[in-house]
Amino acid sequence: MDPRIREHAETIVDHSLGLSAGDDLVIRLPAAAEELAVALHELAGDRGANPVYLNNSDRARRAYLRAREDDFETADHHHALNEEADAFVIARGGPNATEMEDVPPETTAAFNRANKPIQDARLDSDWCLTQFPTPGQAQLAGMSTDAYENFVYDAVSIDWEEQHEFQAQMVEIVDDAQEVRIRSGEETDVRMSVAGNTTLNDDGQANLPGGEVFTAPVRHSVEGTVHFDMPLYRQGREIEDVRLRFENGRVESFSAARNEDVLAGVFDTDENARYLGELGIGMNRAIDRFTYNMLFDEKMGDTVHMAVGSAYPATVGEENECNESAEHVDMIVDMSEDSVIEVDGEVVQRDGEFVFE
Amino acid sequence: MDPRIREHAETIVDHSLGLSAGDDLVIRLPAAAEELAVALHELAGDRGANPVYLNNSDRARRAYLRAREDDFETADHHHALNEEADAFVIARGGPNATEMEDVPPETTAAFNRANKPIQDARLDSDWCLTQFPTPGQAQLAGMSTDAYENFVYDAVSIDWEEQHEFQAQMVEIVDDAQEVRIRSGEETDVRMSVAGNTTLNDDGQANLPGGEVFTAPVRHSVEGTVHFDMPLYRQGREIEDVRLRFENGRVESFSAARNEDVLAGVFDTDENARYLGELGIGMNRAIDRFTYNMLFDEKMGDTVHMAVGSAYPATVGEENECNESAEHVDMIVDMSEDSVIEVDGEVVQRDGEFVFE
Repeated sequence: MDPRIREHAETIVDHSLGLSAGDDLVIRLPAAAEELAVALHELAGDRGANPVYLNNSDRARRAYLRAREDDFETADHHHALNEEADAFVIARGGPNATEMEDVPPETTAAFNRANKPIQDARLDSDWCLTQFPTPGQAQLAGMSTDAYENFVYDAVSIDWEEQHEFQAQMVEIVDDAQEVRIRSGEETDVRMSVAGNTTLNDDGQANLPGGEVFTAPVRHSVEGTVHFDMPLYRQGREIEDVRLRFENGRVESFSAARNEDVLAGVFDTDENARYLGELGIGMNRAIDRFTYNMLFDEKMGDTVHMAVGSAYPATVGEENECNESAEHVDMIVDMSEDSVIEVDGEVVQRDGEFVFE
Repeated sequence: MDPRIREHAETIVDHSLGLSAGDDLVIRLPAAAEELAVALHELAGDRGANPVYLNNSDRARRAYLRAREDDFETADHHHALNEEADAFVIARGGPNATEMEDVPPETTAAFNRANKPIQDARLDSDWCLTQFPTPGQAQLAGMSTDAYENFVYDAVSIDWEEQHEFQAQMVEIVDDAQEVRIRSGEETDVRMSVAGNTTLNDDGQANLPGGEVFTAPVRHSVEGTVHFDMPLYRQGREIEDVRLRFENGRVESFSAARNEDVLAGVFDTDENARYLGELGIGMNRAIDRFTYNMLFDEKMGDTVHMAVGSAYPATVGEENECNESAEHVDMIVDMSEDSVIEVDGEVVQRDGEFVFE
């Protein structure tokens, strides 16, 4: 076994989850990641935790979704599993990133609605979403498998304590702020209140790699337009050049240059999918290229991302409303050129460089 | 996809489980069986059932068991999953049949004890144990992969209605009987009461392939000696030439020519592992060779098997005691030569041939 797989598992178990004796652990990995599963089981045994091992298979999920189409229900047994579990590790890394390409967006939306209580039970626990490097993911990134493995293992194994300190500077700025404004190029100019909400320091726990600072916009405060100039993969389809116009926090109009119907499917899931649940600012300088994988792209040091759909409850202050939705779809703005992040009127990042760097 | 995989999935879903709308299904397969998983998910979607997909990985299990050693506990989340599930399909077919070879028997016994409530919850539901043909299993059988695939798909796709009728003749004989006596070669001569217990017709439901008639011996009635002349695989180790001597139903002495310590580990799991839970008579003529896989070997038309450990509750009459144990270990006697099955003093099979054949 590649020793980096065991190191990756140790980071998940000790840094991301803080697994301890008696914890009921769910390990949900694609079949290709069996060596990571072996390393995780070894550590679970050593720490006195109890693993259940799920297969995270896009191919099986696609077959199920297409055959069922729409009358989805919340699976009691899956819900019970997640309700009783204390910790989750979920890895991506299927053999084909476009496996879900022929699942109708409305089918995915219907499934997500039925599955929401199951997802919520997971989000209430300790969880870590990570990546196993596979040839399919390397292909998506336009990289050799070897180079992609290096990219992934470099990104997950940085000094997370140092990264935490670096990001703490930005947490302090946003956490005390009233308003954040993002300007980029000719089309993006959006303002949102973050007053009363909490800004969190993602140092590689819920996401591995981590490397962002994130909060929830106040629900009705978002005003302006955004051109998300980095593509995103949604259910095996690449959505390009998303443009959103917000009024009173709500997406009042949208377009995409490619796969606009998939984007429409997101907004059709529920009404709250039209509201922002998250504003995130990437700060991980170890991620030095786009790989068309949100888990990495959104952490890059010169991007911001906004997610339509559910907010993380921990980021929403007591006085504010938490946006609840079966969707949470991140989209990225490249901030490396002609771009500014302003907090309460002060520039904190210009063309991808923070003022404190 | 090999069309036989879809046919296999249909037999599981429609014949073995009788899956219906709203059923919560657990699919637990080795990674190599992903195509069977895809076919099962497709059918689950079509029938309106809700699947959870577990990875049945000996390699991960080995890592966990070796690292934890002994302080196992019943995992609440796994227990909750099984309690809420309506149906289970479990396939064997790992890449290496000896993967568990270096797990100490006492570790496996300790795990089985902690895991018993989880197993019991499954046994209370509809379940189907089946096989996916892999190169590793073919190697164990001493066959080419292609020939082994043919062997497996032939065995699971027989006319189960016809098989049911054939076996019904034997069910009628044993179900009305007081005593069964098995004699084979110079060493095997064992008697047991089956009075008041129920004989079941295994026509490919809980086991696929099926093809046996089975009941529970009355707990304290078993008397005599048995030489199990067919080897069995237990946790990746081949146990050869098991010899058991029963008095008042209890195994009072035992030996094995190879891996006797593994056999001792079974008896050390709990006191009831020393009592027989099952007597089975193989009747599937489509299985024409030993493949060192109990799921197939015990169904062969000229074998009987006895399992130490737990009895199936459905085979135990109201007046009789159901043997409960964390173990259920089947062992086989070859009845093809110099062998007789007698029921209440009447010969019903001689040298592997039933009187009604």
